Amino acid sequence: MLIAGACGVESREQTFRIAEFVQRQGATIYRSGWLKGQNRPIINGKPEYVGIGEEAVKILSEVQDKLGIPCVTDVQDVSHVYLLAKYNIKYLMVGARNADNLHLLRETRKIYDKYNPNGQIFLKRGPSMTIDELIGAGEHLGGPDRVILVERGIVSYDRTPQTRWRLDMVGVAHLKTYTEYKVIVDPSHGSGDRKLVKDLCRASLAMADGVMVEVHYDPDSSPTDAKQTVDFDTFSEIARFYKEGAYGKR
Amino acid sequence: MLIAGACGVESREQTFRIAEFVQRQGATIYRSGWLKGQNRPIINGKPEYVGIGEEAVKILSEVQDKLGIPCVTDVQDVSHVYLLAKYNIKYLMVGARNADNLHLLRETRKIYDKYNPNGQIFLKRGPSMTIDELIGAGEHLGGPDRVILVERGIVSYDRTPQTRWRLDMVGVAHLKTYTEYKVIVDPSHGSGDRKLVKDLCRASLAMADGVMVEVHYDPDSSPTDAKQTVDFDTFSEIARFYKEGAYGKR
Amino acid sequence: MLIAGACGVESREQTFRIAEFVQRQGATIYRSGWLKGQNRPIINGKPEYVGIGEEAVKILSEVQDKLGIPCVTDVQDVSHVYLLAKYNIKYLMVGARNADNLHLLRETRKIYDKYNPNGQIFLKRGPSMTIDELIGAGEHLGGPDRVILVERGIVSYDRTPQTRWRLDMVGVAHLKTYTEYKVIVDPSHGSGDRKLVKDLCRASLAMADGVMVEVHYDPDSSPTDAKQTVDFDTFSEIARFYKEGAYGKR
Amino acid sequence: MLIAGACGVESREQTFRIAEFVQRQGATIYRSGWLKGQNRPIINGKPEYVGIGEEAVKILSEVQDKLGIPCVTDVQDVSHVYLLAKYNIKYLMVGARNADNLHLLRETRKIYDKYNPNGQIFLKRGPSMTIDELIGAGEHLGGPDRVILVERGIVSYDRTPQTRWRLDMVGVAHLKTYTEYKVIVDPSHGSGDRKLVKDLCRASLAMADGVMVEVHYDPDSSPTDAKQTVDFDTFSEIARFYKEGAYGKR
Repeated sequence: MLIAGACGVESREQTFRIAEFVQRQGATIYRSGWLKGQNRPIINGKPEYVGIGEEAVKILSEVQDKLGIPCVTDVQDVSHVYLLAKYNIKYLMVGARNADNLHLLRETRKIYDKYNPNGQIFLKRGPSMTIDELIGAGEHLGGPDRVILVERGIVSYDRTPQTRWRLDMVGVAHLKTYTEYKVIVDPSHGSGDRKLVKDLCRASLAMADGVMVEVHYDPDSSPTDAKQTVDFDTFSEIARFYKEGAYGKR
Repeated sequence: MLIAGACGVESREQTFRIAEFVQRQGATIYRSGWLKGQNRPIINGKPEYVGIGEEAVKILSEVQDKLGIPCVTDVQDVSHVYLLAKYNIKYLMVGARNADNLHLLRETRKIYDKYNPNGQIFLKRGPSMTIDELIGAGEHLGGPDRVILVERGIVSYDRTPQTRWRLDMVGVAHLKTYTEYKVIVDPSHGSGDRKLVKDLCRASLAMADGVMVEVHYDPDSSPTDAKQTVDFDTFSEIARFYKEGAYGKR
Repeated sequence: MLIAGACGVESREQTFRIAEFVQRQGATIYRSGWLKGQNRPIINGKPEYVGIGEEAVKILSEVQDKLGIPCVTDVQDVSHVYLLAKYNIKYLMVGARNADNLHLLRETRKIYDKYNPNGQIFLKRGPSMTIDELIGAGEHLGGPDRVILVERGIVSYDRTPQTRWRLDMVGVAHLKTYTEYKVIVDPSHGSGDRKLVKDLCRASLAMADGVMVEVHYDPDSSPTDAKQTVDFDTFSEIARFYKEGAYGKR
Repeated sequence: MLIAGACGVESREQTFRIAEFVQRQGATIYRSGWLKGQNRPIINGKPEYVGIGEEAVKILSEVQDKLGIPCVTDVQDVSHVYLLAKYNIKYLMVGARNADNLHLLRETRKIYDKYNPNGQIFLKRGPSMTIDELIGAGEHLGGPDRVILVERGIVSYDRTPQTRWRLDMVGVAHLKTYTEYKVIVDPSHGSGDRKLVKDLCRASLAMADGVMVEVHYDPDSSPTDAKQTVDFDTFSEIARFYKEGAYGKR
């Protein structure tokens, strides 16, 4: 799987432009968030950026319809599961901040068991979850037949500038060796530094089932995750590794 | 503040017995969870323990009415905020697993701004939140006038048996020195080992605004958190430190 | 034990001035380093500060002779054990950077077994040592009869400005509950922030066998550890807690 | 670079057997430790395994002479630098336990500056060193012309069984992107689990300048690091990736 897209849905134009590009390069799923937010409600006197709300989900739905590429976006509440279903969004993702929200995991599972038993869900590892806890959270959602795990970096004592999170490749190797889960690596969040993403994709494709990458035609203009978002040229190179298949085989 | 109680509401009898005891020793708030859950849905072939549901909230409400001690319990979803309001539970707590669930923080704030502007909320620090992120989460809920922060241990590389979490007393000192927040320490979760709770209460009362302790008449019978729950005798000693006031002054 | 002193021996005058002051306030041991060094050999174009070498050891020896207060200083090499012996320095300390240097631990033990079997050694916990590894390192030096353990903060994912290290009070409680070791807490290194040292001393004295504090008449002028060094007024308050004994009993 | 060998020199026969095998498979340097030791001096009533001492260095010297493959082994003390020189051991390595032993770093540099200015040194990252501190330690030894950095895993809150350390691939990407250092990855120590080594070598060879692997004809018989040591068949596969060059290019 080559999953790519903007950190967030900013507008119809921005989303279509990026989705068309990554699809042309070979991306198999378009990713973009509709629910943004920041650590503080007010930052430097301005309210945090929260995105454009339900309109963003509608845009992703149009991307699916018009471009034919499936989309994945995140849920933070049970009501969001229904919202994404209303717009036929193909995949939902439980993000890192909610990965051990047991209530959300259990209720989402019930909804899928009833209405979408063959649907698949992406589950991002919480930044302080152990591998065992991640496996447990996956079981809460229905296990390896339904859940695709995403390693996106764990907290570490080392915060060398621009590399806040540390991708846990040992955890990825452990999951691939001892469990049946499919595992995707997200080097954008996992490094926090766009200059490192290409190399980490190369390493990830050598071990995992795919990568998830934040891409933008003008990364610096991205209202969120700008520092870890790669530009179109860099993504083209990543897509080339992926297509050549050299690094994806286990 | 001396906040104490069973990890979870098991039954009316169990809850009243513990609440009466801790109140008599000087506890100012009774704490107990109504929403339990474990890392895996099935453990050793048995379904995880999930508690007795809404019945538990009703029992806490009766404790408030009959004993006159206010209660605090947790929410994992916006609907739970309304549920606790329905039963007049005095304090709600956002637990460590939801401390960076921005949706829950923002919606809870809106409800409080509208219906309970003078109400107070306990916010537990997520186990991989930085102090700055905890301060930010507190702002999402309404800031120091509304929010009481709870240090309950952060992840650490050191997992010496039975001490899974590590209380961050530096973080507590930082919060007390640089912010206006009231800060409570939870040495039960913060150490994971009932033998360490008394000493850590002593240290905490020397710096913070109170402690939160898990207590049970028969700790080993507790279906959750048994290893970190102290017995009645130990709690009496902790309450004595608290009452003598020697360790609570800054 | 109330152990206090400058981070490093800068000069005879500086050392005597600080030693006299802390002794008058009730300090039982004077601490100061003779071997300084920094993470890089060249910083902003200037060579790292390395201290005044053997002259510093001589000054500490004079402090012992003239003031009658015993001193503790650090070793980084087997040859330093002999050097400190030559000057009759009462206590040596294996610092955090060498706490798992097995060669140094074993050779130091052999020298003590032979020449100073009743001598005591301070062993600082390495910043990524588990409690079990610290206990093991203590055994390499000769066990609880010879070794006094010093908790000085462990690495943590949280690097909130000026609090680089996190004191592990759970580890201290564990050592006091399950082992025979004497345990000292060092809130100066353990917090990295002079404003937090007083509160953390209070908490530490409630649980441990003493504290170790960096003190200077002009903290900002200290060539090393300036941010975590307290001034004379603050140290007087810490010494008062210590003397009143309220926080030292377990 | 493909660096391989037994964790420790057990005997002449064991060392030659492994060195011949890894050389035939394409290894460019033979690695093996001569100074062993464990966290405790006595384990289950038996003294820790400490290896065969200077005899081990002599055996490595013979390996160099008879097989023509250069060797690398570790130093824990300045005297060991001279010992390795006496036996003409091609490369020395400062191990993770000594990576921030400033005295050893500085003295080693002086010796090399004087006697072996073109010699190269392997420096393993300490398990709680930041990337910036590792770069600083490298400067203490003489910088990128002399020093080859080895990422061998950092401490992490996640201790899922058999994966005690976590390889920091973000750190490797950072070093390769922002510095001139050559970087080797050690997935044996970096994962602690022999089943994960092959996958992690694949990922490492996609980014770094080489790998360092612990190999034994009978891994379970290895007195140290048995769980992380791969057998001959596994090493052959790793050597094949290396030779095919597919993963080594940046």
